[in-house]
Amino acid sequence: MKSDLDSLMQSKNLDAILVLGNAENNPPMYYLTGGGHISAATLVKKRGGEPALFHQDMERGEAAKTGLKTRSYSEYPWQELLKEAGGDPALMSALRLERIFKEHNISGRVGLYGHTDISATFAMLAHFKGRMPEVEMVGEARDGSLFMYAMETKDEAEVARIRRMGKITTEVVGLTADFLTSRQVRADEVLLNEDETPLTVGDVKERINLWLAERGAVPSEGYIFSIGRDAGLPHSQGNPADRLRLGQTIVFDIYPQEIGGGYFYDFTRTWSLGYATPEAQKLYDQVRHVFDKVMENFTLNAPFKDLNTLTCREFEKMGHQSPLNTPAPVEGYVHSLGHGLGLNVHERPWSGLTAAPDNLLKPGVVVTAEPGLYYPEKGMGVRIEDSVWIKPDGTVEILAEYPYDFILEMKSWRKE
Amino acid sequence: MKSDLDSLMQSKNLDAILVLGNAENNPPMYYLTGGGHISAATLVKKRGGEPALFHQDMERGEAAKTGLKTRSYSEYPWQELLKEAGGDPALMSALRLERIFKEHNISGRVGLYGHTDISATFAMLAHFKGRMPEVEMVGEARDGSLFMYAMETKDEAEVARIRRMGKITTEVVGLTADFLTSRQVRADEVLLNEDETPLTVGDVKERINLWLAERGAVPSEGYIFSIGRDAGLPHSQGNPADRLRLGQTIVFDIYPQEIGGGYFYDFTRTWSLGYATPEAQKLYDQVRHVFDKVMENFTLNAPFKDLNTLTCREFEKMGHQSPLNTPAPVEGYVHSLGHGLGLNVHERPWSGLTAAPDNLLKPGVVVTAEPGLYYPEKGMGVRIEDSVWIKPDGTVEILAEYPYDFILEMKSWRKE
Repeated sequence: MKSDLDSLMQSKNLDAILVLGNAENNPPMYYLTGGGHISAATLVKKRGGEPALFHQDMERGEAAKTGLKTRSYSEYPWQELLKEAGGDPALMSALRLERIFKEHNISGRVGLYGHTDISATFAMLAHFKGRMPEVEMVGEARDGSLFMYAMETKDEAEVARIRRMGKITTEVVGLTADFLTSRQVRADEVLLNEDETPLTVGDVKERINLWLAERGAVPSEGYIFSIGRDAGLPHSQGNPADRLRLGQTIVFDIYPQEIGGGYFYDFTRTWSLGYATPEAQKLYDQVRHVFDKVMENFTLNAPFKDLNTLTCREFEKMGHQSPLNTPAPVEGYVHSLGHGLGLNVHERPWSGLTAAPDNLLKPGVVVTAEPGLYYPEKGMGVRIEDSVWIKPDGTVEILAEYPYDFILEMKSWRKE
Repeated sequence: MKSDLDSLMQSKNLDAILVLGNAENNPPMYYLTGGGHISAATLVKKRGGEPALFHQDMERGEAAKTGLKTRSYSEYPWQELLKEAGGDPALMSALRLERIFKEHNISGRVGLYGHTDISATFAMLAHFKGRMPEVEMVGEARDGSLFMYAMETKDEAEVARIRRMGKITTEVVGLTADFLTSRQVRADEVLLNEDETPLTVGDVKERINLWLAERGAVPSEGYIFSIGRDAGLPHSQGNPADRLRLGQTIVFDIYPQEIGGGYFYDFTRTWSLGYATPEAQKLYDQVRHVFDKVMENFTLNAPFKDLNTLTCREFEKMGHQSPLNTPAPVEGYVHSLGHGLGLNVHERPWSGLTAAPDNLLKPGVVVTAEPGLYYPEKGMGVRIEDSVWIKPDGTVEILAEYPYDFILEMKSWRKE
């Protein structure tokens, strides 16, 4: 949580942090500002101190909404700085940062964060380094970084936003199910559009994108609505030209985000329209069994990967391959159980079998649970996924409830 | 153009370039790959050589679509590298980059580009520096960077995509005009929704966002649909709660982007619904006069800022303030004439009065022309903007034609 930042800075031996870039689509800056139309900003925070946000003058209204201490870049007149920099804009940025650091008495180890232009940042820091040798800039690999640790546990306001995205997600999933089951079906079991052309994955995705946009959610690029063989490839997004047919597994994995780079939800259901083949039904029942078992076995403060090991064992007992005893399996259970979820669609805690032991199911984490089985050569795949919050009292809340039906009955088709 | 990259590298004394990050929402990587769901990629190109794209193994299908020479990261097994790195993921990334550079015989000055995580990049480069002293990484401030120069001129395929976004943009502007003029009007000249509540800026923007989404365009955050006093503030996006009224200037400045971080279009019209006040009509006529004059005075290979100076002179002749003789005016003509347009909504060439002399109207540039006049205290503002392409033969093409009507006649309201 944000309230952990100072103690995390201490454990990482950081005297201050420097966050660069826009407030939107930039998780560390979004985390500290709450987003908004604030571009090319600079945020500094000393350990134990409050953050200060430096912004473009014309964005002062948006900056004020953050509730942070703000200062306009106009207090560092660019004409004057550019002259001092001999016309070099990278040096000008370094001079401005130097003034900001000196005014705030920042020295020592300073953690550098943000998602922005690496070329301009590198050029600026190259100049800065020579000017303030008392500052040591520190970068961190993403997964172990200060923000990944802080963001790992959520406060109730963050959970409320994830829950709200979950509500939108499941509404859109419900609309999709209604739309599919209302289609007319041709003799060869292909679903039809109103103009009697075959309904394709692309047609369905277009509607999903609209339904999300209507609700103020961004349809994350690359979400999955795949049928048949593609459903058996966990990373296939689905081929837009594929036709919707009865009796084939459809994997629908959707992770919309709040507009502007806010919180995600992550959700998967697998459907078979009209009827299911016995083989697909068996696969579904097995995944459902393991999903339920996982849901019953969340243990407060246990390593998340223990649940993944449980999942592997259960699937192996059923005769499937899993990463526990097969390196990089291509069929069976081929991924890990889940991941943390927040301003990043994938974040700490991790559940992979090689995840560090400090990836724990602590109070406050929001994680996905998404066991699945994949048989691309048989043209089928099944995954079930909910996102859950480990509450402060240790109980588990599914943040958006939705039925687990596998076979979706068609409104105007019956199996003969 | 992309074909200029080698000569630009030569003029910047760069032996190679290194581009990091996703293919989407990352202009340099998008420029070289054409976008697609390719995440955390590495692209290297020696001067005079072809680019090579290194990608995650599961994204090989997307990587292949780029048409570039591709290699999977799986050829640099992470378990082995991580072991060599003593478990440090930043060092592991540096070791992988070292292998890539050595295999490609890359040394000397290497330009670093991309929009990605600065913390992880900085940590990786800190390790890399000690390992390959024969490589000097070079960052560049954005506006003068290699990619800003290369992107400045567009090939016909790029222009076709900008033109296509222009078509979508003007379609949506037309739908907006039809929607506004079909509204019922209350006795106090406020427009009404179907449920007879007052129509607000927020209501209109919701529809605009949907119409864009239906056409596969992303409504850029912060686009402008503003009325009255807000129309007089060129950077105000419009207050969502403001009511639509007859006889007030509405500035509608919209710059949608292709999904995934592709090409932009940029377009503005100013409207007054039902009727215009004489003062607003005069302001509109003046902006229109200057807009037409600008359109007639595009001179091949002339500095773009000459057109801005012309605009300032014309407005000053009419008695308005402009930056030519008033430092940072707050009313009158308060911005510059336009900017280049492509994968960035603002890019080279620049038209500001202080722009460097190499910002020329060269064949292949796509620029906006957007003169405007602003009087916030009088509650009005006017801007007219089209995006144009300077064709190889030196003629100017407006990339999306749209009428220049100021007063939009209401379908069910007549001035008494």
